[in-house]
Amino acid sequence: MRDGTDGEQVRVVALGGGHGLYATLSAVRRLTDRITAIVTVADDGGSSGRLRAELGMIPPGDLRMALAALAGPAAGVWPAAVQHRFGGSGALAGHAVGNLILAGLTELLGDPVAALDELGRVLDVTGRVLPMASTALTIEADVSGLEADPRVGRRIRGQVAVATTPGTVRRVRLIPSDPPACAAAVAAIGDADLVVLGPGSWFTSVIPHVLVPELHDAMARTGARKVLVLNLAAEPGETAGFSTERHLHVLAQHAPAFRVDHVVVDSASVPAGRERDQLVRAAARLGAESVFTDVAEPRTTMHHPGRLAATLEQLAPASAKRRTA
Amino acid sequence: MRDGTDGEQVRVVALGGGHGLYATLSAVRRLTDRITAIVTVADDGGSSGRLRAELGMIPPGDLRMALAALAGPAAGVWPAAVQHRFGGSGALAGHAVGNLILAGLTELLGDPVAALDELGRVLDVTGRVLPMASTALTIEADVSGLEADPRVGRRIRGQVAVATTPGTVRRVRLIPSDPPACAAAVAAIGDADLVVLGPGSWFTSVIPHVLVPELHDAMARTGARKVLVLNLAAEPGETAGFSTERHLHVLAQHAPAFRVDHVVVDSASVPAGRERDQLVRAAARLGAESVFTDVAEPRTTMHHPGRLAATLEQLAPASAKRRTA
Repeated sequence: MRDGTDGEQVRVVALGGGHGLYATLSAVRRLTDRITAIVTVADDGGSSGRLRAELGMIPPGDLRMALAALAGPAAGVWPAAVQHRFGGSGALAGHAVGNLILAGLTELLGDPVAALDELGRVLDVTGRVLPMASTALTIEADVSGLEADPRVGRRIRGQVAVATTPGTVRRVRLIPSDPPACAAAVAAIGDADLVVLGPGSWFTSVIPHVLVPELHDAMARTGARKVLVLNLAAEPGETAGFSTERHLHVLAQHAPAFRVDHVVVDSASVPAGRERDQLVRAAARLGAESVFTDVAEPRTTMHHPGRLAATLEQLAPASAKRRTA
Repeated sequence: MRDGTDGEQVRVVALGGGHGLYATLSAVRRLTDRITAIVTVADDGGSSGRLRAELGMIPPGDLRMALAALAGPAAGVWPAAVQHRFGGSGALAGHAVGNLILAGLTELLGDPVAALDELGRVLDVTGRVLPMASTALTIEADVSGLEADPRVGRRIRGQVAVATTPGTVRRVRLIPSDPPACAAAVAAIGDADLVVLGPGSWFTSVIPHVLVPELHDAMARTGARKVLVLNLAAEPGETAGFSTERHLHVLAQHAPAFRVDHVVVDSASVPAGRERDQLVRAAARLGAESVFTDVAEPRTTMHHPGRLAATLEQLAPASAKRRTA
């Protein structure tokens, strides 16, 4: 782990989970070595779900992906090794090697943060990867459209169920509702120059961060510039059919006091016109200026690391260098 | 992995498996950084047996233990992590974390030797750990005493079955009988100053090395001083009731042309008298001088690393330093 003691570098905290956070981290590492990733721990599917159920640990998959995104040149084959999944049809099939390593280190050390730091050292990670909370969380959602009567809502539980529901997600909750945040994550938000939330699965990787009271409050208190990065497209399942404006609307519904400074929107995803006007107004209600820019990897719905990095660099506070010099 | 380029240091190859090899390596590392461990790959029990059956890989357990024995100070928590076994009663219960890492690296890299070198790097290993063969082997034994008629032998198969048989092991075979040896292991024997075989489970960790034709021939050809380290006690199961002399006798039965220069015997295990005289004669038939010395950890049947190291240092060829200077 490079320690990022370069006092000239901007301190960035990126919150999210899964592939969205991987994209943010791939961008942010082009700007600075002083990175803290804060990762959702509500997954209940696949290798992570099996480890969570078997060992009672926080689901490691999103944490593993964040470590891989920040891996350095001295790591050699290890980033590929931790991402490797066992084949076949036996007891190990589908498990990512890095998930098993995190599971073993967590059992041995009794502390998921210590386990992440140790695997981060082998992966020559730039910065640090932290769980949003030190215990596994469960996501519960109110979903409409599952019954013949569209006014009837149903409560569904679990990240996989929420992410793949054929209904429309109205609201999500964390169980427990007031989980203890990872203390180092709270501290990192307080010390940051730039806090980046999103992109990612909206209800299961982005909104959960504002539902953890200590993280919500740390983001409210921090002197950092706060940036919300919108997805390039609605996701089948949890946000099927959602406009970009609706993404902001549901975020505000879940955390009415939550404010950001900038909302980053891909220009091509929201062409000028009525949808863009609505989006600008929704962003303003979050206290944010909308930033329309080309951030997409051409012909995909993924962010281009270099373009996202350039945008974030422009949005980072000019005072960051002076503050840390 | 420290590369041991110090030309003054003696080059040692240690062959064995399991706890016996762990003891040898713990001793040898006190003498030199130029160590090659050559490890049996016939285990079919526990975590190793499950991985072998599920993934078709060489059983990793004895290899993992050898890596742990050679781990260096820069490895931090990793030696403990690779030795850690998952608890509980689920799909992972009983698996050693290091076995899973070796399994993943082997799947990813397609080469168990490359996998061992990579994990060796994280463990800051002194020297190198190699499998005796690049494919998993099966041990088959002729065992007597399992039937009412003691003259009737039975054939049993598998390391666990052989190691725990209530009968008397007469002979073991490898399946396949002519496995390809690990090429780097053959080369290391050729380049060694000192080759150490044993201690360890006699039929399942020691004798298998002389049954691999390429290893047998490499040991016959090498200019290295060859030392056989006897066990401190017979093992329940495979060598129950065996005298020390009988250990040498069965080794010679399996490899009539095999010769060593020294047989190291714990003085207290074989007091002066008739058994010691028989042992000296049996060693002489292997071409060996018997070396009686205090090598036991007091009040155990394990070798004391410091005492074994002192004995091996005396037996290393005086010319080793000049040859490598």
